Amino acid sequence: MNRQRKQMSLGAFLFSFGHHFAAWRHPLTDADGVIDLNFYKRNAQAAERGKMDMIFFADALSLPDKEDVAHDVSSVYPDASTVISALAGVTERIGLAATVSTTFNEPYNIARRFATLDHLTGGRTAWNVVTSTKNTEARNFGAEELPDHGDRYGRAHDFLHAVNSLWDSWEDGALVFDKESGQFADTARIHATQHNGLYFRVQGPLNIPRSPQGRPVIVEAGTSEAGQRLAAQTADVVFTACAELGQAQQFYAKLKAQLPAFDRQPDELKVMPGVMFFLGDTEEEARALEAEFHELIVPEASTSYLSRLLNYDLSAYPVDGPLPDIPVQGNSSRALMVIEKAKRDSLSIRELGLYFSVARGHLTVTGTAEQIADKLQEWFEGGACDGFNIMPPYLPGGLEQFVDRVIPLLQARGLFRTEYAGSTLRGHLGLSRPAGRYSLLEASGQST
Amino acid sequence: MNRQRKQMSLGAFLFSFGHHFAAWRHPLTDADGVIDLNFYKRNAQAAERGKMDMIFFADALSLPDKEDVAHDVSSVYPDASTVISALAGVTERIGLAATVSTTFNEPYNIARRFATLDHLTGGRTAWNVVTSTKNTEARNFGAEELPDHGDRYGRAHDFLHAVNSLWDSWEDGALVFDKESGQFADTARIHATQHNGLYFRVQGPLNIPRSPQGRPVIVEAGTSEAGQRLAAQTADVVFTACAELGQAQQFYAKLKAQLPAFDRQPDELKVMPGVMFFLGDTEEEARALEAEFHELIVPEASTSYLSRLLNYDLSAYPVDGPLPDIPVQGNSSRALMVIEKAKRDSLSIRELGLYFSVARGHLTVTGTAEQIADKLQEWFEGGACDGFNIMPPYLPGGLEQFVDRVIPLLQARGLFRTEYAGSTLRGHLGLSRPAGRYSLLEASGQST
Repeated sequence: MNRQRKQMSLGAFLFSFGHHFAAWRHPLTDADGVIDLNFYKRNAQAAERGKMDMIFFADALSLPDKEDVAHDVSSVYPDASTVISALAGVTERIGLAATVSTTFNEPYNIARRFATLDHLTGGRTAWNVVTSTKNTEARNFGAEELPDHGDRYGRAHDFLHAVNSLWDSWEDGALVFDKESGQFADTARIHATQHNGLYFRVQGPLNIPRSPQGRPVIVEAGTSEAGQRLAAQTADVVFTACAELGQAQQFYAKLKAQLPAFDRQPDELKVMPGVMFFLGDTEEEARALEAEFHELIVPEASTSYLSRLLNYDLSAYPVDGPLPDIPVQGNSSRALMVIEKAKRDSLSIRELGLYFSVARGHLTVTGTAEQIADKLQEWFEGGACDGFNIMPPYLPGGLEQFVDRVIPLLQARGLFRTEYAGSTLRGHLGLSRPAGRYSLLEASGQST
Repeated sequence: MNRQRKQMSLGAFLFSFGHHFAAWRHPLTDADGVIDLNFYKRNAQAAERGKMDMIFFADALSLPDKEDVAHDVSSVYPDASTVISALAGVTERIGLAATVSTTFNEPYNIARRFATLDHLTGGRTAWNVVTSTKNTEARNFGAEELPDHGDRYGRAHDFLHAVNSLWDSWEDGALVFDKESGQFADTARIHATQHNGLYFRVQGPLNIPRSPQGRPVIVEAGTSEAGQRLAAQTADVVFTACAELGQAQQFYAKLKAQLPAFDRQPDELKVMPGVMFFLGDTEEEARALEAEFHELIVPEASTSYLSRLLNYDLSAYPVDGPLPDIPVQGNSSRALMVIEKAKRDSLSIRELGLYFSVARGHLTVTGTAEQIADKLQEWFEGGACDGFNIMPPYLPGGLEQFVDRVIPLLQARGLFRTEYAGSTLRGHLGLSRPAGRYSLLEASGQST
């Protein structure tokens, strides 16, 4: 292995029974219920065997329409931060990333939850920061509708600011734990946050010491303009959806160019697009596998999935007709992507439903392990990304295939580690540990 | 073992490095930092080896005053629900109970978190429902002061109602998971909650199926009048603080007498007072151990602890003088207990500080394993409780002592199980699984 070569980052995105819309029906998917710790454990341990940087869980705060689950499992979401916490005790080195919405939570609760988990895992935690995007989510929290897009981002920005203040509220040297003298903490090194933002007032400090990573890793999507600005300022990792190389290169260059304005270096932010794949011994075998999965999709279910993405009921429109005019104003960036794709490629509702219910706008590769490794290398070396969030079509088998067949090729090419070098997620990702806002005081103080 | 005999329930209350105020300083306490998964794991596995019903974690949402942690670890709180989640993967049978406040959370988030964990553990989860009691907690959530006591209980009541509705929103038969036909769920068995309470509006349904216990076990403190009413109506377990037998018997009888008004049987609610202990081969040895721990208490720290309990700064008052007049109105039930104890026994601030910082109003037994077992049997058979929440003075050694020396005596007397009979916490506690509010519909339906 060429030690000089830049290394890619790899996450395992563990969604439902796999990312293919009908994964739960396929005999390769080894699951018979919904929420089973052994299922998650097998996935996490496979990813860790592959020396991957992290596993990653999405989250949502509503069942948009109960009819959605008649034939489709994709709106069932166990609580992501609880799932990664349960995996803390059965993994050793791999990072654990969970999505939590800033729209219907409070900074003090979220700062504590991730700092606690960062302690329990010795520094392996990441928070995927999102804003909620569905009115059905608002209705589970006493509101009729979501705040508008700008307001949600304002709240997210303020939320992150408060959380970072709380994470810094104990300096690294604050915990003394001197059994002999009875001094537990150096209280001069514990600071009230006194956060007074537009959305949140948080007095602080946190009621636990600073965590091993200083601040858990921040993941964001960074799809919309507001999302990109927030990511350039506050994210360590951007998880994005790009189906084509040119589009990914543009996104990458544009996002990285925004970092200097916030006094940050380009390599302080890692861009990791999602990639779905169908793997076979030959390309034909891979295509046959893909087709086999597609045949399991119940057509009404993919139209209904599309309606959910768009926040717009399509059930009354002819399935082979075009997408009707849908209000763009206030819609999610994922919805805008659907509308744009429909226009650009003149797709029918049926075609769009298949396209988005399967890959959801992400890069998809169907072929041999070599072909998949080639594509990842092409994107990585072509300035399209710093790594990938791997989206196996079915679990845990699809992930195990990736670990056993694709990762060894990437390792042989010197593109991916063969062993963990450190024990924190920041270490895996090549990100430094933030010094904390009181570092200047610390530098002149008596301890580290 | 006499199978006919009524069995006691035993929880292990895992607080800090042990319940003694200065536990962290004692050489028997095996810990060198604050939040270490291996430390919790050793405790949980010891309790499981003892066939105990559950482990139990307290929680709080502020560091009241940073000076409190100069010599005292008792206001440091890792997030309890995250800690029990992390223990899910390293335990098999024992119940996992965590405290979460209803004052600064939202029902949808909490219902999902505990239902998720109940799935992941196969039905071993309990939620200790509390209201927040400190203004410093309010100040971490945008308010200057707590809502008043009545308001907090009103909110707690409404919160629990919403959570129970969400837990029932998927009937047991709603998950179909028929790979062949493609039917994932029977949507006629999924119900919007449409909760419209005084404090919360929650449309529902939950976005995960009903959990193994139907509803995770509900633990409450039930100390104040309002707390007792709420417990009689909604709790499965009451964890209470009683230092004397007569007081415990009165509390027990009074609480159980309130159940019929809510159409409940006395054995549907288990009363488990806390019990702290110092164990030695002889009573003298136990007393010496207790004295050794007491000597490690820094005096300012116990006065400051008392100030925190009372929400009232005592640092300006002479430590050997009496407690000043402290406003009773709106104070917590724990504070009222302190005020009452000071009056009844004419204790100085120093004496009160030692009394409460050590046992915090709980039963304390200092003696041999036999003496401790005798006291537990006396209370249990004397109509004072249905079991105990064990509060080891130091961890994990103090818990291991209880498991290895006291539990075998209780087992030999036929008062405690020698093996788990079931795999859910409700099973351990002898509580039935709630049918869910749609049980009548279910009874006439095609599945269970």
